[in-house]
Amino acid sequence: MKCRVCRGPAVIDVRRHNAAFCRDHFLAHCTEQVRRTISEHKMIGPGERVLVAVSGGKDSLALWDLLQRLEYDVDGLYLGLGIGDYSDESGRYAREFARSRNLKLHEIDLAADFGYTIPEAAAATRRPPCGACGLSKRHLFDQVAMERGYDVVVTGHNLDDEAAVLLGNVLRWETEYLARQHPVLPARSGFPRKAKPLVRLAERETAAYCVLVGIDYIVEECPMAEGNRHLGYKAVLNELERQSPGTKAAFLHGFVDRASPRFASAASEHSLQTCASCGAPTSGEICAFCRLQSRVRAQ
Amino acid sequence: MKCRVCRGPAVIDVRRHNAAFCRDHFLAHCTEQVRRTISEHKMIGPGERVLVAVSGGKDSLALWDLLQRLEYDVDGLYLGLGIGDYSDESGRYAREFARSRNLKLHEIDLAADFGYTIPEAAAATRRPPCGACGLSKRHLFDQVAMERGYDVVVTGHNLDDEAAVLLGNVLRWETEYLARQHPVLPARSGFPRKAKPLVRLAERETAAYCVLVGIDYIVEECPMAEGNRHLGYKAVLNELERQSPGTKAAFLHGFVDRASPRFASAASEHSLQTCASCGAPTSGEICAFCRLQSRVRAQ
Repeated sequence: MKCRVCRGPAVIDVRRHNAAFCRDHFLAHCTEQVRRTISEHKMIGPGERVLVAVSGGKDSLALWDLLQRLEYDVDGLYLGLGIGDYSDESGRYAREFARSRNLKLHEIDLAADFGYTIPEAAAATRRPPCGACGLSKRHLFDQVAMERGYDVVVTGHNLDDEAAVLLGNVLRWETEYLARQHPVLPARSGFPRKAKPLVRLAERETAAYCVLVGIDYIVEECPMAEGNRHLGYKAVLNELERQSPGTKAAFLHGFVDRASPRFASAASEHSLQTCASCGAPTSGEICAFCRLQSRVRAQ
Repeated sequence: MKCRVCRGPAVIDVRRHNAAFCRDHFLAHCTEQVRRTISEHKMIGPGERVLVAVSGGKDSLALWDLLQRLEYDVDGLYLGLGIGDYSDESGRYAREFARSRNLKLHEIDLAADFGYTIPEAAAATRRPPCGACGLSKRHLFDQVAMERGYDVVVTGHNLDDEAAVLLGNVLRWETEYLARQHPVLPARSGFPRKAKPLVRLAERETAAYCVLVGIDYIVEECPMAEGNRHLGYKAVLNELERQSPGTKAAFLHGFVDRASPRFASAASEHSLQTCASCGAPTSGEICAFCRLQSRVRAQ
């Protein structure tokens, strides 16, 4: 197995590109994929300030590293979710990455700052924990970005993540979610722009990137996600990818190019007002984040 | 396990309906599903003449039986594909079904009437055989329907078939195919209406229907289809259905209801002329069926 670029010994093959790479050319390949994604979807403009949502996992740390390599002005935000040892450990990886590179990492701790943890929120709502978790993350990433003057929030969603979400949305034809599933969502009143610069990299590639760069990350998956549908969709897509390399990329990028515009009219156009409790933009009187906090407090 | 309708002993459960049925109420359930599908999509009007494409398998024979039960005026068309023992045997089942019920079965034999078999066509085109087979079927079903005054051609595509085709079209976002994937396609100049009345029945149900009614059918799958992508998509959908019963039906019917109209504009609107060789409607000078015959002859 030889590097496609220099013909030296390769350390990884990427079947859907029908290519193998040595260490340095693999890192260059990943960087180029991210550069191209940012450029194609106009994710980050010149001089803009970027906030990366950092979980301590391979994707978010690789993303932070890649954006630095591309010379963007990027700070991190780590959210302590209160998921026992998993959260303690993931926080240590995020902090260590920032410390070793002298980068700025904002931190919010759900328990200390807002009086609840994700397991408590799941118990209070009697719904799968991923719902309360996603809601909390979105709210707080947006809030920190707006308050501290970041132009764009970037997240480490990779090709596998996005293809699995797309499959779930397509299997149920969730037209409103399909209307919003895009690598970049423009800013609108009260919300920053949001972007996913890793949609051209598979999770195997972000893991290899971290190993080759020497980034330590939390390897365990979130223990609360076990058995959720998303993992079933990933398994199914892995099987299809094995039978036909390139399936996931064709599925996701084909959607963005040829199908996504057809669902634009399904986007709900709620008029936004200001949450009476926290001041965040919301379609109701009280935003979903504040309603979640009330429910947990009422337990 | 008790019948949902009469509480007698059940012979089959249908997990996506969360129901079990005795023999008689299962047959009534299947009949009602087909009646409702025909009505919802206006597949067959009062007094119209129906041509059912009969392969000798469970789906097409169940469909012929069900349409008779619903008192439609239905004749059959069997196409001899020249696929060795498989074709010999499937022809026997089709003829025996028609003979035992005194039904009219038209027959065309590709080798005797058109000078080629599907294996020969596949060799000549150097493409998977399913392409030449589908092309030959569509052409000849249309031709017989138009020449003999049938209003609509119906085929035995079931829920599993249609969901697998849909998954393939969605994974590659084949917008033109998505624009045409519908339980009914209206007649247009030179083409009869085409309909799929079994889209609400899974293949396990059409098989059970045949067994319970006492219809003998060819159990083997076509030997030429082995290893094609369609079977991989069926396997993946079976796994998702196992994890979450109702997945296939929600996927297919959700597409028809909420997504299909969004792809209508992707349908190619070729202006049709008359094939210089056979007179069939075609977008070119010579239709694809006549071009296929020429290629086989040139071998």
